[in-house]
Amino acid sequence: MPPVPADRRYAVWLSDPGFAAAEIARGIGYGAAVLDIEHGAFDLADLERFVPFLRSLGLEVLAKVLGPERGPIQQALDFGADAVVIPHVENAAHAKAVTAFAKFPPLGDRSFAGGRTTAYGGFTDEWVAEQDRRTRCLPMIEDAGALEDVAEILALDTVDGVFVGPSDLSLRRERGAYTRAEGDFADLRRVADAARAAGKPWVLPAWSRAEKEFALRHGAGQLALTMQHGALAAGLTAAFEETAALQESTAAE
Amino acid sequence: MPPVPADRRYAVWLSDPGFAAAEIARGIGYGAAVLDIEHGAFDLADLERFVPFLRSLGLEVLAKVLGPERGPIQQALDFGADAVVIPHVENAAHAKAVTAFAKFPPLGDRSFAGGRTTAYGGFTDEWVAEQDRRTRCLPMIEDAGALEDVAEILALDTVDGVFVGPSDLSLRRERGAYTRAEGDFADLRRVADAARAAGKPWVLPAWSRAEKEFALRHGAGQLALTMQHGALAAGLTAAFEETAALQESTAAE
Amino acid sequence: MPPVPADRRYAVWLSDPGFAAAEIARGIGYGAAVLDIEHGAFDLADLERFVPFLRSLGLEVLAKVLGPERGPIQQALDFGADAVVIPHVENAAHAKAVTAFAKFPPLGDRSFAGGRTTAYGGFTDEWVAEQDRRTRCLPMIEDAGALEDVAEILALDTVDGVFVGPSDLSLRRERGAYTRAEGDFADLRRVADAARAAGKPWVLPAWSRAEKEFALRHGAGQLALTMQHGALAAGLTAAFEETAALQESTAAE
Amino acid sequence: MPPVPADRRYAVWLSDPGFAAAEIARGIGYGAAVLDIEHGAFDLADLERFVPFLRSLGLEVLAKVLGPERGPIQQALDFGADAVVIPHVENAAHAKAVTAFAKFPPLGDRSFAGGRTTAYGGFTDEWVAEQDRRTRCLPMIEDAGALEDVAEILALDTVDGVFVGPSDLSLRRERGAYTRAEGDFADLRRVADAARAAGKPWVLPAWSRAEKEFALRHGAGQLALTMQHGALAAGLTAAFEETAALQESTAAE
Amino acid sequence: MPPVPADRRYAVWLSDPGFAAAEIARGIGYGAAVLDIEHGAFDLADLERFVPFLRSLGLEVLAKVLGPERGPIQQALDFGADAVVIPHVENAAHAKAVTAFAKFPPLGDRSFAGGRTTAYGGFTDEWVAEQDRRTRCLPMIEDAGALEDVAEILALDTVDGVFVGPSDLSLRRERGAYTRAEGDFADLRRVADAARAAGKPWVLPAWSRAEKEFALRHGAGQLALTMQHGALAAGLTAAFEETAALQESTAAE
Amino acid sequence: MPPVPADRRYAVWLSDPGFAAAEIARGIGYGAAVLDIEHGAFDLADLERFVPFLRSLGLEVLAKVLGPERGPIQQALDFGADAVVIPHVENAAHAKAVTAFAKFPPLGDRSFAGGRTTAYGGFTDEWVAEQDRRTRCLPMIEDAGALEDVAEILALDTVDGVFVGPSDLSLRRERGAYTRAEGDFADLRRVADAARAAGKPWVLPAWSRAEKEFALRHGAGQLALTMQHGALAAGLTAAFEETAALQESTAAE
Repeated sequence: MPPVPADRRYAVWLSDPGFAAAEIARGIGYGAAVLDIEHGAFDLADLERFVPFLRSLGLEVLAKVLGPERGPIQQALDFGADAVVIPHVENAAHAKAVTAFAKFPPLGDRSFAGGRTTAYGGFTDEWVAEQDRRTRCLPMIEDAGALEDVAEILALDTVDGVFVGPSDLSLRRERGAYTRAEGDFADLRRVADAARAAGKPWVLPAWSRAEKEFALRHGAGQLALTMQHGALAAGLTAAFEETAALQESTAAE
Repeated sequence: MPPVPADRRYAVWLSDPGFAAAEIARGIGYGAAVLDIEHGAFDLADLERFVPFLRSLGLEVLAKVLGPERGPIQQALDFGADAVVIPHVENAAHAKAVTAFAKFPPLGDRSFAGGRTTAYGGFTDEWVAEQDRRTRCLPMIEDAGALEDVAEILALDTVDGVFVGPSDLSLRRERGAYTRAEGDFADLRRVADAARAAGKPWVLPAWSRAEKEFALRHGAGQLALTMQHGALAAGLTAAFEETAALQESTAAE
Repeated sequence: MPPVPADRRYAVWLSDPGFAAAEIARGIGYGAAVLDIEHGAFDLADLERFVPFLRSLGLEVLAKVLGPERGPIQQALDFGADAVVIPHVENAAHAKAVTAFAKFPPLGDRSFAGGRTTAYGGFTDEWVAEQDRRTRCLPMIEDAGALEDVAEILALDTVDGVFVGPSDLSLRRERGAYTRAEGDFADLRRVADAARAAGKPWVLPAWSRAEKEFALRHGAGQLALTMQHGALAAGLTAAFEETAALQESTAAE
Repeated sequence: MPPVPADRRYAVWLSDPGFAAAEIARGIGYGAAVLDIEHGAFDLADLERFVPFLRSLGLEVLAKVLGPERGPIQQALDFGADAVVIPHVENAAHAKAVTAFAKFPPLGDRSFAGGRTTAYGGFTDEWVAEQDRRTRCLPMIEDAGALEDVAEILALDTVDGVFVGPSDLSLRRERGAYTRAEGDFADLRRVADAARAAGKPWVLPAWSRAEKEFALRHGAGQLALTMQHGALAAGLTAAFEETAALQESTAAE
Repeated sequence: MPPVPADRRYAVWLSDPGFAAAEIARGIGYGAAVLDIEHGAFDLADLERFVPFLRSLGLEVLAKVLGPERGPIQQALDFGADAVVIPHVENAAHAKAVTAFAKFPPLGDRSFAGGRTTAYGGFTDEWVAEQDRRTRCLPMIEDAGALEDVAEILALDTVDGVFVGPSDLSLRRERGAYTRAEGDFADLRRVADAARAAGKPWVLPAWSRAEKEFALRHGAGQLALTMQHGALAAGLTAAFEETAALQESTAAE
Repeated sequence: MPPVPADRRYAVWLSDPGFAAAEIARGIGYGAAVLDIEHGAFDLADLERFVPFLRSLGLEVLAKVLGPERGPIQQALDFGADAVVIPHVENAAHAKAVTAFAKFPPLGDRSFAGGRTTAYGGFTDEWVAEQDRRTRCLPMIEDAGALEDVAEILALDTVDGVFVGPSDLSLRRERGAYTRAEGDFADLRRVADAARAAGKPWVLPAWSRAEKEFALRHGAGQLALTMQHGALAAGLTAAFEETAALQESTAAE
């Protein structure tokens, strides 16, 4: 139905399961959605419904799960997410342990569940291979230890790329609150270089123009362009300011 | 907590019970919220929670109810709405019948319920008088018959003002889809004049600059400045276009 | 499991679908629950779950529906309610029209739905007769016109008893806010007499000792003893006052 | 994704907004879904999500709304339903009044709402014409008066076909509970003949083999083949009986 | 009310909190329900309501919790589950640690909460003993290490039986996707033998005839006979195929 | 609006997100609410709404989270809780590890999320410092090891006070079910002494008069006076007993 093609490089960052927000984003041309399950308000029954809806709209679903644990990783994949983004990976050893939950044995340790992903039927060895190949596992680089080990993490065969968390990285690299400064971009460059060397993509939440430009220039596989809340605030502010200005000019007449 | 004062003349138009959307709007300076219960997705349990939350933020709550019937009018007031906006009022007789559900006997025919509005206790004659005075009843002017009878409707003692629905009015006044044309503003002027004559406010959803300006110049009591979905679309579009332009200029280097 | 027998004369008045509240009430000995769907927050999916749960606890379910209309009456019965309580019945003619929605043709005009009430299967003439007999239809006496016509209403074969709404009755009988005064009890007596004459039960929400006593003495079939919110307020107040007194005496030492 | 083509003649009858049930039905080849909003448990927020999901799966959505009233008809169409099925239409005059809520002026009296159906933007005269043409309005033939007037109802330009309710029709045509008897099929034939004469489709819930055969032979436009609950019961029974038989034969060894 | 006795050996496998599904299963004769909280969509508020409802229907509740952790185990028991089924137990040491969350000190390390299980009152030493005895703890045998240690696990006094996960076991025993082959049944036999030796029950999800037969012959304490989704798919397929065949034969005439 | 001042020393203990319960408590004078997320039924979307509502009423929010883990601690703070109460802290080392999730680096290891706490915008070093200072972290003293280490726990700079769990403490200190006996008060005294020595508050759930008195005399910073369910049970019981007595005396006449 939507005439605008979906560009999967450009993702919208969602904090709740808003069906209308997803339709609006898809109508503009966004081709992916990052679900901030970690900090947002996604209950299980909502997630179970939202993930297939997003996919049916033609949006790739990146589920940033609650934590580096089996349960949340497994559920996002059971519900049909295209990728799991795993926060607070501490280092290569931790990455090895937790990314395993995203891939089936013998590659990893994901648990099997018949349901949406098997079209509500049984499974075969081919299906197992296809799931492991098709769904992506993206550990986050937001802890100092993960940045140190980024090459080693990218080398894991349970890892399909990395996703940067610049705010937490700034705090944990002892630069305090994130200011998009020199040091921040140096860290991002390190991730970008490691990703290119590994031949795997890296993903960046890029709210500012500077971050967007950096991501584009350094070959980020995907960018989250704006948060649902940030976009709403921008739109509400514009309408408010237009009216306040009109009010002033009208009153001045 | 919010340092920005709330200006109750400026309303945000909400299509679902988004707590974050309300906080964002209030943070910008909006002082009222129109809940589009008629066309949106407000279930009862959500409404029962959302109305007091909006009020606690300092937002005046205008509940545009499901229809010109006892149930929806009564529930919105039970849950604590400051005003009920009643759609599809057909003419003065209809207005007299349905606006009665918003005021207690002997003035009208609202049903009493002990709960939020009585601080979960009983009630007195003073409370009845105070509720009838404090909560406002705003029939909509969106049917041709209601426009004809606007003065009579405004004269009813169960009516505290009117709320215009320009899209439905255009369709029902045989102008087809709403184009913000001459005829539309002529109708709005008629409402504004009647309201001024009656000494009661009129309210306008004013998405465009032209409507905002008209409302300000013609003494509208309140304006809905933008829809939640429209504001979100504007914000998402801006981020998308900024990135697309950057992508092009980057690729061109 | 509960060792205390359920006394169906004593009902608890619920304003939301609280499973724990129902279990607590049943554990004390309450044998019926009035669901205030009219003024409370009962969405459909919640109601569909709450009604069979109440029944499984051994509580009789009296659904005070949203309004005197087909939809709400029919849904409460579809979901398994034992009785529908119909608010704002205006007079005998109105009662005849709206109580029909609670009984199948040829007695009335209820719509058939295969589901919970048919054990998820088809239906027979015997089932129709049994449903009409087993489920009760209780129009409310809370409008002046309904009180005038109470005998005629009780005579309808679609009516199994009446349910009084004393607050609205006081307002509509021009006594203002309900004060449990002479005039109020005179009206109640009129209802009680008519019910006894018709050989059908009457039901009273009886928050105060005076109302409880009146209901017991005048043969009410069932009494709602307290509202969920009122009971909670009483319990919270007791704990607060005990502590405040202790605080004072402790500080005084 | 689903390799099986969707056949829109074959509908599944859903009683709750089960996303998995819809996926399963679509995977089998069902091409339409009847939502029994009248007797089922569809809250607004669920409906707002379920309708677009069904459509994204390639299922045509027939919303059997709560009642013959403006609110429920309008909301189903606002949320994106392909068709509204209107229960308890009493006769041609009633049909004329209530089917008007499904079409915009000047054809009918539907209320406009910017949202999903307008891709979250404004509207034009072309859009109005396209909505009126694309969404279908199907009054139910389940009251004796509606059957009498079926030709007149089908002749209305706000009506795109009819939907039969055989259980209620049997009760209201004084045949008692529906037994799929001679008289029932005679009524269905009357509807089928009128539909063919009018050149508009008729739709039948056809649980039994006899009804399915009748519908196919008499050119029904669409059939609802089974209820979600009936299908579940059939599947659960089969597994139970297989096990019980095994248990017996095992014990007998 | 249900005339069919409930046979607790036969369980239905539920993937969401469907009240109707539970009633249907109970009506057929199922006497237990396995809630697949691990892979399904059970939010807390739903679970809090669904568990007591299932029990009130006479169904034994086996809660297969989200993971081998304190929180999910404790909540299922707080809400009134009869048994907790603990997935992904890795070996005997792990079993000892995590099954402790299902029993109170000094036996284990379950946390106390006044609520449903204490009839909303306080507790005594007798209640503690009775809870530990009445509620069952069933670690899953689905990891290779757990199968190795099955006898040791069954010997734990915090363990009341075991529950097999054949699909994950096949993957983790390096047989790839589960095909109900020789090796699979050899593993099941090992579990059955260990359970018999320990005098504690074992439970099997037994979708196929072969598994059902195996379970019955090898003395499984309980069997899950079919999944909610599988049963629904079977029922929907049957109706679809019947119609397609009729359509063909009708068309051929 | 509420004329009664809120006394933050007196907390109500809530087991579900009841907006009316909160309003009632606030109206009485309660100034804080303990949310029993650990044993209650608080889903994420409900919590995201309930926390800001409680704060807007003027209630301090103490979120007793699901467990001593990053996810639940972080979410409660993201949603705006004033304090996190962390159950099942085992000893000082454990306390050091898990209380870190409540404070940002370099003090701890909390993860940053732009949203409610940042007014939906970015963050600064000042904001980080202010959040760490303003939100409180209260590990629970309910394990024997935690009681042993109470002084050491109170000395941690990520700890702002302690919260006692007397029932679990009794079970884990080998006194069996909690009976408010000598040994119990001895443990409480130990906590109170340590807190006074550390200059940090301690908090007690104090259902009985004895506990309330103890807490007041020993300088507890806050007391939870009653559980929502306990208060409701008290109120429902009073109404039931009043009626039963009246019934008896009436019958005896």
